[in-house]
Amino acid sequence: MKPVPQKVVIVGAGKVASQIGNWLHRGGVEIIQLINRELEKAQSLAEEWSAQLTDDFNALHPDAEMVIIAVSDDAIGAVSDQLPKSDAVVVHTSGSRPLEDLQKHQRRGVFYPLQTFSAHAVVDFSRVPICVEGSDDQVEDALLNAVELWGAQPFRLNSEQRGSLHVAAVVANNFTNHLWGLSRDLLVKNDIAPEIVHPLMEATLQKALTNHPHDIQTGPAVRGDEETIRRHLEKLSGDATLHRIYELLTSSIIEKNRNAKL
Amino acid sequence: MKPVPQKVVIVGAGKVASQIGNWLHRGGVEIIQLINRELEKAQSLAEEWSAQLTDDFNALHPDAEMVIIAVSDDAIGAVSDQLPKSDAVVVHTSGSRPLEDLQKHQRRGVFYPLQTFSAHAVVDFSRVPICVEGSDDQVEDALLNAVELWGAQPFRLNSEQRGSLHVAAVVANNFTNHLWGLSRDLLVKNDIAPEIVHPLMEATLQKALTNHPHDIQTGPAVRGDEETIRRHLEKLSGDATLHRIYELLTSSIIEKNRNAKL
Repeated sequence: MKPVPQKVVIVGAGKVASQIGNWLHRGGVEIIQLINRELEKAQSLAEEWSAQLTDDFNALHPDAEMVIIAVSDDAIGAVSDQLPKSDAVVVHTSGSRPLEDLQKHQRRGVFYPLQTFSAHAVVDFSRVPICVEGSDDQVEDALLNAVELWGAQPFRLNSEQRGSLHVAAVVANNFTNHLWGLSRDLLVKNDIAPEIVHPLMEATLQKALTNHPHDIQTGPAVRGDEETIRRHLEKLSGDATLHRIYELLTSSIIEKNRNAKL
Repeated sequence: MKPVPQKVVIVGAGKVASQIGNWLHRGGVEIIQLINRELEKAQSLAEEWSAQLTDDFNALHPDAEMVIIAVSDDAIGAVSDQLPKSDAVVVHTSGSRPLEDLQKHQRRGVFYPLQTFSAHAVVDFSRVPICVEGSDDQVEDALLNAVELWGAQPFRLNSEQRGSLHVAAVVANNFTNHLWGLSRDLLVKNDIAPEIVHPLMEATLQKALTNHPHDIQTGPAVRGDEETIRRHLEKLSGDATLHRIYELLTSSIIEKNRNAKL
């Protein structure tokens, strides 16, 4: 592989595959081949990128310098095993699968964009962190260089760190999103327009991006306002799950605050 | 009181008092008096607003049309009792205290800005929802009109609804902020730059503002990815609190998803 690969093969035609492919294509990287089990789903992408299209993993393009496997976590191992050995660097794009899913390939890596993608909206990759790991230093450096040259934000993370990052991302995103949903349901149930909390949600996030969130914690728990906490739990008496979530997160805030003061 | 009060008295000199006062002052509303237990703390605000300053609650300005009590929740009842009866509409600015904290005053109301304020940054009140409740229709309409004319977002909410809103706001803001803090600690502990999750946090919020969050839930829980959940819980085995939070929120997402599919 040259310092930065110029000829890329993409495997998969889902959201991550199409967003990464579109980004590389916009940046002038040559996508020489698109491999997908179902040809029909991949047709328009292949045309857009002027890429050869195949459903035969054995037909991997001989000029490939980098193969990006952007398929669901469960399928990565099987796809990797079906691809022939080659000189290309073979990477997957998963935050939760180890490098060793690709062990068939001598030069392997991880190329994990930490962002949530929708199928169609154009993603601004200059704001996308891409976590990179390589089977050796040369591969890892090439991947880091590629991310930088292609204009995204490179981070060097080993598999262990990527595992921790994935947990942290679940906590910071999946769980917060779920809480926003529970909050919204509570508002609607009480005939309150859910938009009423939107400005506050935006302000809370902006503060959390520029401070340590624990340093700017507000609300009854951090104030030690037991009377309000008691009233809130009473309000939630009809909702066992949210009641338990309220109790647990309140005690976690109190605990964190106590430790911070020690 | 005229349809919209022109002469306002503010009680308190903390963040909420100063932000509301600054907003009204910028909008040309006359702040005729500032009442605060500690004169020194209120001096510069009074000068800025060209307001009379006193620490004597009995000396309430006779021209007052609206008295805004912007003090801590616990102090509202006592402040209300110390203020003399008058023709003014007396309001408090708390999301969690009932209208009846102000029962001494015949024309009373709630004027609750649902936003997080810092002491100094200029707040754009055009983006601030203000929840209004009045002791009678005339008072309530006047407060709604005032919010609208002064350029913020008026919402009519009774005390019961405001109680639910406060719970929902705690869930959507205090709890999410705490999760961001826990997530950040986890990253730092694993030598990962915490900024790595910032773009994802921003994208997650943007999606949650334009969809029902439950409809766009992502992550291992909603995918039913038990293998990843197991691995994440293993990673958290050294952190009892976060382990419990992970378990509880994961099962809540699974439960919500199951109910949605019924």
